[in-house]
Amino acid sequence: MTVALEPRIGAQAMLLAMLPDEEQSERLASRLKDLGYRVVHGRVGAMDGEKVVAAMESAVKRARVIDGRLYREGHALYHAILDALHGVARGPLMFGEIHRTVGLKFAVVRGPGVAREPGDWIAVALYGMIGAPAKGFEHEALGLGVFHI
Amino acid sequence: MTVALEPRIGAQAMLLAMLPDEEQSERLASRLKDLGYRVVHGRVGAMDGEKVVAAMESAVKRARVIDGRLYREGHALYHAILDALHGVARGPLMFGEIHRTVGLKFAVVRGPGVAREPGDWIAVALYGMIGAPAKGFEHEALGLGVFHI
Amino acid sequence: MTVALEPRIGAQAMLLAMLPDEEQSERLASRLKDLGYRVVHGRVGAMDGEKVVAAMESAVKRARVIDGRLYREGHALYHAILDALHGVARGPLMFGEIHRTVGLKFAVVRGPGVAREPGDWIAVALYGMIGAPAKGFEHEALGLGVFHI
Amino acid sequence: MTVALEPRIGAQAMLLAMLPDEEQSERLASRLKDLGYRVVHGRVGAMDGEKVVAAMESAVKRARVIDGRLYREGHALYHAILDALHGVARGPLMFGEIHRTVGLKFAVVRGPGVAREPGDWIAVALYGMIGAPAKGFEHEALGLGVFHI
Amino acid sequence: MTVALEPRIGAQAMLLAMLPDEEQSERLASRLKDLGYRVVHGRVGAMDGEKVVAAMESAVKRARVIDGRLYREGHALYHAILDALHGVARGPLMFGEIHRTVGLKFAVVRGPGVAREPGDWIAVALYGMIGAPAKGFEHEALGLGVFHI
Amino acid sequence: MTVALEPRIGAQAMLLAMLPDEEQSERLASRLKDLGYRVVHGRVGAMDGEKVVAAMESAVKRARVIDGRLYREGHALYHAILDALHGVARGPLMFGEIHRTVGLKFAVVRGPGVAREPGDWIAVALYGMIGAPAKGFEHEALGLGVFHI
Repeated sequence: MTVALEPRIGAQAMLLAMLPDEEQSERLASRLKDLGYRVVHGRVGAMDGEKVVAAMESAVKRARVIDGRLYREGHALYHAILDALHGVARGPLMFGEIHRTVGLKFAVVRGPGVAREPGDWIAVALYGMIGAPAKGFEHEALGLGVFHI
Repeated sequence: MTVALEPRIGAQAMLLAMLPDEEQSERLASRLKDLGYRVVHGRVGAMDGEKVVAAMESAVKRARVIDGRLYREGHALYHAILDALHGVARGPLMFGEIHRTVGLKFAVVRGPGVAREPGDWIAVALYGMIGAPAKGFEHEALGLGVFHI
Repeated sequence: MTVALEPRIGAQAMLLAMLPDEEQSERLASRLKDLGYRVVHGRVGAMDGEKVVAAMESAVKRARVIDGRLYREGHALYHAILDALHGVARGPLMFGEIHRTVGLKFAVVRGPGVAREPGDWIAVALYGMIGAPAKGFEHEALGLGVFHI
Repeated sequence: MTVALEPRIGAQAMLLAMLPDEEQSERLASRLKDLGYRVVHGRVGAMDGEKVVAAMESAVKRARVIDGRLYREGHALYHAILDALHGVARGPLMFGEIHRTVGLKFAVVRGPGVAREPGDWIAVALYGMIGAPAKGFEHEALGLGVFHI
Repeated sequence: MTVALEPRIGAQAMLLAMLPDEEQSERLASRLKDLGYRVVHGRVGAMDGEKVVAAMESAVKRARVIDGRLYREGHALYHAILDALHGVARGPLMFGEIHRTVGLKFAVVRGPGVAREPGDWIAVALYGMIGAPAKGFEHEALGLGVFHI
Repeated sequence: MTVALEPRIGAQAMLLAMLPDEEQSERLASRLKDLGYRVVHGRVGAMDGEKVVAAMESAVKRARVIDGRLYREGHALYHAILDALHGVARGPLMFGEIHRTVGLKFAVVRGPGVAREPGDWIAVALYGMIGAPAKGFEHEALGLGVFHI
């Protein structure tokens, strides 16, 4: 099936996070980079939000999707991550603390926003499984955060 | 680009909600119905959560994705909708009350869950734009709720 | 069945709110008044929290369970009501705004707290049905708030 | 005093959690079992929500109130526990993290819901003391969660 | 008493919002403008968050503290306002909906942030009285939001 | 610049928490004590809310701003601290759990409230920096809690 999502960074990031096949993910990431976006994707699994946030921040800086020396870029990324986590957690932003665990794929896309004005926006998408710390006792969860950078 | 998302109802619902082209949406919905899922999708835009919830409940019952006479099915749908709204709202579950508005596409998919056990699950996906009540002053938002039915 | 709850104002208020029979309620309320507690109970049903709060505040002041001229007593009552509503709402403190309605019995008990020290405490208990604005599509909900006065 | 609560699983579970006398609790639990309900009650005290959730999940499965092999039953139980914890916590779902501790009695009742339709519901009730980690510096708190199973 | 707050935009905005004397406020606002900051302050009172947000957005744009034609500036302002409201509301972001009202002074300061890097930050401070809709039954509340612009 | 804040305990506590100069802080604290208020201020920095709450409770009791043997005074203080933390956290009441850290100055003032009636109120103010656990990647945050004692 051919998918032609509008060139919106949120939908592209979400699609990238949901693709189950690494080869497909790479192809989509490449295509987005060709269009001028900065892109990174990866996996993170943990029982505490701290590790999820820290792992994503590291990956995003390492891939130079944001400039790790600039606080304002880190600030935008942080808020986009928290917003995405709200979608995953749906209520209290807690995982192990309330006896549940997450295994997530993340995708971060940076580029022009919807508004026709200068300046980048950043989209952080999370997709994965959330549930009891027992195989098979889990269902899908996802979230998206979008911020001006 | 060919997309082969795993047959997970959450990812399918999210993709359906994100497809910008009605023809594509119809094709994906048909394919899911062929696989035995019950599916409905549509649009809802409002400044208050009450209308979003009510509009979706009506559409889902009308399409017989749930049996509107059974409270337990309505209860599962309601919680899946609220969970999806958490992803859209990211914090207080409010729209007009804090001077923002949403225009959303929704998709609801019902069928077997991930666990290999009898009984359906329902996935509610929302995708759209959220922002100030002024054209162009808005960004993407989305959410997903998954419940046993 | 004979019930001998410890003389704790929270449990007494909750029991009073849950008793389905007005005669039983009156008997429990009388017994608590005989023990020196100030007590009021009643019913409130609405789709918005504002009416629930306002109706309870009026009833409690009218029954002189608090002195309506003293802000500190009103402040204690207000926070006890909000805490009880948290138990009923379990997440966003919203009813009609997210398309659900409540029909509640409330009970308020004022008297010495658990700690052996001077000064009263106030307990606000709520019990009732929450659900879709359609008969039979609802389940039980309850909450309790306890504050020093 | 003779108490005849309506046969509603939420009120019954709450009453069971509030009864201070183990003999009385056993009698109420027996009576509910005779009526066809599945019932378990016990105590849990901790400074972190994780232990409260885990201890209750274990007790409920061990007593076969739910079938621990079915994800959908575990999913219903989990959400009912979280809802009950919202009533106890009244705001952030945190205990030790914000320097407070809880000692709780829990009661779980499973059986037909209010709606006249097939399928069980589960009610989780919590009652106890919440406060500073110092004897006597605590007050009552309680909560109830009700879910279709 | 002579006050020499560090040149931090948050503390300056908070002080400006707390000054009870309009003459003093004008003097502090002038001094901040002389230092290169963009500043606006005013009053807003309402029972619903929507009016508070809308009134502040209008005032800030009218005073050209942000460029009302740029979405990214409006987005930063919006999030700073919401953060400040969290401090005022301390829990649910609701006022009239839970039967309380606010009368607030606001101050908005825009300029360089703490980090030594290019780009402005915006600070939104709110200070006032919150309480029952009855004179004298209210206490102080305040909040601050700080965002990169 | 001469500042004449109205004699409101919240504004005074907030100002005291924001003053960057210890000498100025001491002078303001002395002046408030001369007016009959009980006052304490200090610093607390941590990645978890538990330590922030515990450190403040100890300092306030040690300075005899509340009587540590009375639960009702501890209860008022606890709720005022939580309210102030809501302003600092603006959303989930979490710090290290979501990979951020705080360094705060606190000030607590106890005395007559705004209402002309007997009985003290307590104001807890927090001011400081919140951000990534990396120097310079942080911005200002503050909060205030006010309770009857």
